[in-house]
Amino acid sequence: MNNLSPKVQNQLSMLQQIQQQLQTVLSQKAQYEMAVREAKRAQEEISDAAEDAVMYMSVGTVMMQKKKEVINSKLAEKVETLELRIKSLEKQEKMMQGKFEQLQAQIKAALEGKGTPTAA
Amino acid sequence: MNNLSPKVQNQLSMLQQIQQQLQTVLSQKAQYEMAVREAKRAQEEISDAAEDAVMYMSVGTVMMQKKKEVINSKLAEKVETLELRIKSLEKQEKMMQGKFEQLQAQIKAALEGKGTPTAA
Amino acid sequence: MNNLSPKVQNQLSMLQQIQQQLQTVLSQKAQYEMAVREAKRAQEEISDAAEDAVMYMSVGTVMMQKKKEVINSKLAEKVETLELRIKSLEKQEKMMQGKFEQLQAQIKAALEGKGTPTAA
Amino acid sequence: MNNLSPKVQNQLSMLQQIQQQLQTVLSQKAQYEMAVREAKRAQEEISDAAEDAVMYMSVGTVMMQKKKEVINSKLAEKVETLELRIKSLEKQEKMMQGKFEQLQAQIKAALEGKGTPTAA
Repeated sequence: MNNLSPKVQNQLSMLQQIQQQLQTVLSQKAQYEMAVREAKRAQEEISDAAEDAVMYMSVGTVMMQKKKEVINSKLAEKVETLELRIKSLEKQEKMMQGKFEQLQAQIKAALEGKGTPTAA
Repeated sequence: MNNLSPKVQNQLSMLQQIQQQLQTVLSQKAQYEMAVREAKRAQEEISDAAEDAVMYMSVGTVMMQKKKEVINSKLAEKVETLELRIKSLEKQEKMMQGKFEQLQAQIKAALEGKGTPTAA
Repeated sequence: MNNLSPKVQNQLSMLQQIQQQLQTVLSQKAQYEMAVREAKRAQEEISDAAEDAVMYMSVGTVMMQKKKEVINSKLAEKVETLELRIKSLEKQEKMMQGKFEQLQAQIKAALEGKGTPTAA
Repeated sequence: MNNLSPKVQNQLSMLQQIQQQLQTVLSQKAQYEMAVREAKRAQEEISDAAEDAVMYMSVGTVMMQKKKEVINSKLAEKVETLELRIKSLEKQEKMMQGKFEQLQAQIKAALEGKGTPTAA
């Protein structure tokens, strides 16, 4: 990077930072999406059961017996919360993507304007 | 890589891509194989139990009481689905392996045809 | 690193070691903090239940039926233990941070005192 | 590595391989040790319970009600199996460590016998 101007070097390191933040956002989103799928599978499974079927729900290491309708509403709440978080992550993702492409264009323009790196 | 022709450089980067995709396929396959082993262990465990033994099956954070025969058929279904996915992954694996070896041979031929890297 | 004195090289490798240890401490702390959050969520969940509600607590692969008050005190104990460990990790974190900054300053001073790397 | 003889280059790549295998063995051992600790904690937990306490044991996604004595003997069996595997891994670890040190000494001797890398 010795032939790059401080400005371009700075833009390159910002590019790297955004890439890392984007990675974090995407992996967080993937985790929430998996949790939504799991909660929806549980809702389906429950919908087949009798109203008085024996069911438990776990929070960490504790399992508590709960009525079908209680579990159902807790799952619905969970799905709703997770989907809100996913939407918020998608907004962040879009903003980062925009910033990323803008930086990329600026760096490309700077490098092309400069000619070959060894040119005086 | 300065002495390599653009074509060989391109083949090398394809080689790397295939290697990464192969890694993803292999780790996914390993996860499915573990899930199959676990489901089969559960089937064995169940087979020793009385028909009216109290059992639960979990979907995410919800556990529902189910009859032995219901759990058994759900486990059998799960094993079947997973084994289909494993077979499909093995097909992908084979195709990638073939593409990998082909590229490797092409690169080797190109490099040998070129003589030593510093030769004019 | 060929132009660096053995002393500075040594300080640089110590810097790297501390950075790795700091990573380990931080990821351990994050795990304990998640376990605390989970235990507190379980406590909340339990507090709404009737005194005679059917609950289980799991240790590894074993789930045992326990009374609400027993689970509650086990969770409180768990939170307390984890919070002590987190405090101890935070002490380690602070010490490492201090050592890190000290080394960084020493290296910076050594490099600046040296002038350009190729100067005699 | 251009100045190293093919023999030494080969020894270096063997060294790297052994290091990777050692990593795999150590992380597998750490997993088994954690499973042993967990099974022992479950045994302790059970020992306080009444003979007719309601307990479940999970295999994958299935939980089955079992008697205290059955769970106890299953846990004891599990601990025994895991401890055998740990011993076997420790044997492998020792062998690899020995091979590692031997190779390291051979490489060191080869490099020292060679004098400075650029000497004719």
